[in-house]
Amino acid sequence: MNLSNLLDDRRTLIDSALNYYLPGEEEYPRNIHRAMRYSVFAGGKRIRPLLTLLTAELFTPDWKRALPAACALELIHTYSLIHDDLPAMDDDDYRRGRLTSHKVFGEGMAILAGDALLTLAFELLTDKSNKFSEFDSSYWQYVDPGTKLNVIFEIAVSAGVKGMVGGQVVDLESEGKCIDVETLEYIDSHKTGELVMASIRIGALLAQAGEKDLHRLTLYGRLLGRAFQIVDDLLDVEGNEEKMGKARGMDAKKEKATFISLRGIAEAKVRRDQLYSQALKELDYFGNKAAPLQEMTRFILYRDY
Amino acid sequence: MNLSNLLDDRRTLIDSALNYYLPGEEEYPRNIHRAMRYSVFAGGKRIRPLLTLLTAELFTPDWKRALPAACALELIHTYSLIHDDLPAMDDDDYRRGRLTSHKVFGEGMAILAGDALLTLAFELLTDKSNKFSEFDSSYWQYVDPGTKLNVIFEIAVSAGVKGMVGGQVVDLESEGKCIDVETLEYIDSHKTGELVMASIRIGALLAQAGEKDLHRLTLYGRLLGRAFQIVDDLLDVEGNEEKMGKARGMDAKKEKATFISLRGIAEAKVRRDQLYSQALKELDYFGNKAAPLQEMTRFILYRDY
Repeated sequence: MNLSNLLDDRRTLIDSALNYYLPGEEEYPRNIHRAMRYSVFAGGKRIRPLLTLLTAELFTPDWKRALPAACALELIHTYSLIHDDLPAMDDDDYRRGRLTSHKVFGEGMAILAGDALLTLAFELLTDKSNKFSEFDSSYWQYVDPGTKLNVIFEIAVSAGVKGMVGGQVVDLESEGKCIDVETLEYIDSHKTGELVMASIRIGALLAQAGEKDLHRLTLYGRLLGRAFQIVDDLLDVEGNEEKMGKARGMDAKKEKATFISLRGIAEAKVRRDQLYSQALKELDYFGNKAAPLQEMTRFILYRDY
Repeated sequence: MNLSNLLDDRRTLIDSALNYYLPGEEEYPRNIHRAMRYSVFAGGKRIRPLLTLLTAELFTPDWKRALPAACALELIHTYSLIHDDLPAMDDDDYRRGRLTSHKVFGEGMAILAGDALLTLAFELLTDKSNKFSEFDSSYWQYVDPGTKLNVIFEIAVSAGVKGMVGGQVVDLESEGKCIDVETLEYIDSHKTGELVMASIRIGALLAQAGEKDLHRLTLYGRLLGRAFQIVDDLLDVEGNEEKMGKARGMDAKKEKATFISLRGIAEAKVRRDQLYSQALKELDYFGNKAAPLQEMTRFILYRDY
């Protein structure tokens, strides 16, 4: 299997598992289930769950045991997008070429859909009946309870006020204001970086990676997380509008401080390239086994959508 | 210690623990921490955490091990109030005599404060460093990981789309509409009932109650949960405005379907009284040990605020 096929294969698996975890659209009450599925299946790139699976795959052929945690991360990422798009936050009408949740289902339902997805993430990680042999994620049943608790803790900390929510708070408070590089770094590392880092660490934890490997991958995750947000900023200037499903130039329009507004495009690209090669260096240690993760890193940092 | 003092003592303990778990107001970013604390310390009656502690106390002198889970339930209850009060939901400006979160901190921050509290609930339940000897909740460290996972599962299911969020969804969709008794029962049992029942079950789970006792307490919880919402509806008609910190008659004003709007006050009281005596009957089995829980049941169902 070549690398591109391998990533497609993993994406298909993730989508099947998400489909399994989400309540059916025909189940009562239908609108909330429709809203949850509308946003989860909106063409996301599945970056976080892929990072989890590929990291686990560095250490074990039983990497599918990481599938429930990978899905939990995607549900949390999706909830954060729904809430970020609300009028009281970023006030976006479109995402990935489709109307945002609150434009389709109304604001109240969008808030509740986000709440439901966040809660479902923790439900699926603690559900003892969680098994569907077609995805071999029955492996999850054999993860020891202590490790499961560690995984849930990583997710909660990275998604909460010390992580993603904290970043969103400072982002919200900074809109239309002049901010310094320190504040910008806080926003980027928390809003995006923490969950990306957690995605990687969780893959390693579930594959019982040793302390040193976990440390190395945490470093890799931190570098990738930093570069991740710079790429998001670059896409807003240079991305493929058709593939992104939204117009470029939104950050400037909203007077949002970004790495680019503070330092310019050229420096942003240099920084991205630096972080890319530093991140790859951390993967070198793992040799050929890390090829899929290297390819994923390249995809994340040099995509045009 | 008489019963009223005992409840006060437990409340003080719960508040101290909540204070321990919540980030300090002076920590960066301050506004979100202020918003989280503003709503958690807004004079709540701590009904859910009290139910957890008193249920655990039926079975073990080590009931303090249930304190972290009790706090998690209160954080989740508080998040649900913040989101319910938003303009896109119930649009309430006051709660317990104070401005609601979004009136003080803005809508965006209120949404994020709710998100943060929900996430913190799962963080504190999985935090290995969770111990503060002054509350003896270091006991929590000795709860076996499998039981912790069961507790987290109960909380996630009862708070999520199969529980509280599902009830809120149907409530939101029913506003201004004529609904039948079945729909109303769905709203009440899900929006309020599920988390109340979970509060009780979790106390029993953490005290290693046997299957039969757990079954009995689940029944008690279901009866109490049903009566709980009827009492909420009664308070909106007959409650003490000063102690409630809000005006009566809001349900009627919003044309909200309640047990009272469908069946009238007299029938609501009869139903409450029936449920009360049925609930007490389930507690009879536990004899004198259940006196605090009986007193709590009476308080919940016959309060005027």
